Amino acid sequence: MDFSSKLLEKAVEEMAQLPGIGKRTALRLVLHLLKRPREQTAQLVQALEGFRNEIRLCSNCHNISDTELCEICSNSRRDRSTLCVVEDIRDVMAIENTAQFTGLYHVLGGKISPIEGVGPHDLTIEDLVRKVARGEIREVVLALSSTMEGDTTNFYIYRQLQPYDVTLTTIARGISVGDEIEYADEVTLGRSILHRVPFENSLKS
Amino acid sequence: MDFSSKLLEKAVEEMAQLPGIGKRTALRLVLHLLKRPREQTAQLVQALEGFRNEIRLCSNCHNISDTELCEICSNSRRDRSTLCVVEDIRDVMAIENTAQFTGLYHVLGGKISPIEGVGPHDLTIEDLVRKVARGEIREVVLALSSTMEGDTTNFYIYRQLQPYDVTLTTIARGISVGDEIEYADEVTLGRSILHRVPFENSLKS
Repeated sequence: MDFSSKLLEKAVEEMAQLPGIGKRTALRLVLHLLKRPREQTAQLVQALEGFRNEIRLCSNCHNISDTELCEICSNSRRDRSTLCVVEDIRDVMAIENTAQFTGLYHVLGGKISPIEGVGPHDLTIEDLVRKVARGEIREVVLALSSTMEGDTTNFYIYRQLQPYDVTLTTIARGISVGDEIEYADEVTLGRSILHRVPFENSLKS
Repeated sequence: MDFSSKLLEKAVEEMAQLPGIGKRTALRLVLHLLKRPREQTAQLVQALEGFRNEIRLCSNCHNISDTELCEICSNSRRDRSTLCVVEDIRDVMAIENTAQFTGLYHVLGGKISPIEGVGPHDLTIEDLVRKVARGEIREVVLALSSTMEGDTTNFYIYRQLQPYDVTLTTIARGISVGDEIEYADEVTLGRSILHRVPFENSLKS
């Protein structure tokens, strides 16, 4: 694309570095800002700068937080003996939305992925082992995506936690609530038959 | 969505004000910045600020420009007697890419749209009439999108320029090069039959 304006070109190039934003979309977004009052751009810029420079990770669970200890970790009503291991803040938000989990979280910051060059030491697994070693945690719930990377990470954590007296569980996989059996994929259907649960359990929720 | 972080929430909210960016996408973009070095956010922020605050409109054609007069208007090899009327810089870029137009542009900054509250006086039509009144322009090419707003704007300009001795043309509408006649929409096909051109013309390009 030939922009005839270096300022526009630079803005579009930087915008297009964001994931899923191509040059055309970037141009549309940048030209949109031009049609809006300068304050909107100023506010956007300020919010991004503030977020990037001032945000920290909770010293306990490694979740994104404005403070040293995040809201969940500092909530005295949460069950400190159950720890849910997730990949990032989006998973925390998704599980919090269900209002079904009252324990604390442990945010790994990613999954083990040799292809992307992410090894166990790039994640917060060592800190997880340290926490468990302290002996206050009775159950660790693995809630990672069911992908190859997720499975690898689950298995690595399983091996690391084997020496300790802690129950390791994983979230249930199965047919989504409301889904037709007919259209479910084989692997999920197979697993949900294999891990069938007493009928009375399904009456509880 | 419950963010548990005011800084994150603010960044997501501002990002989600951009057109076509929902809250989920905004969250993904903002979390992406967090995984990248701070310099990337700094560069993005700087590029957006620089663009929004320093960009100007060319004093002649109203196109986006870094300088008082844009590159096209200050190019002495361009034909100053032909003026192509377009909606915004994206159309200028599209037409420039064809390398088929050697005249100057006149950027309206939008189309007349009563629904969106855009009247003729919000556009640069008055300046267009002033330019034509000076008498140096021999042809005005209307190159607006073929929508109701585009047609309205075309007609308004046509009425405004009637008193002056200037040829008013519009870009040709017809079946796209490479398209099958069978699948063409009726209106376009109808127009392209109505406005058929001598066969020798098609051999030229």
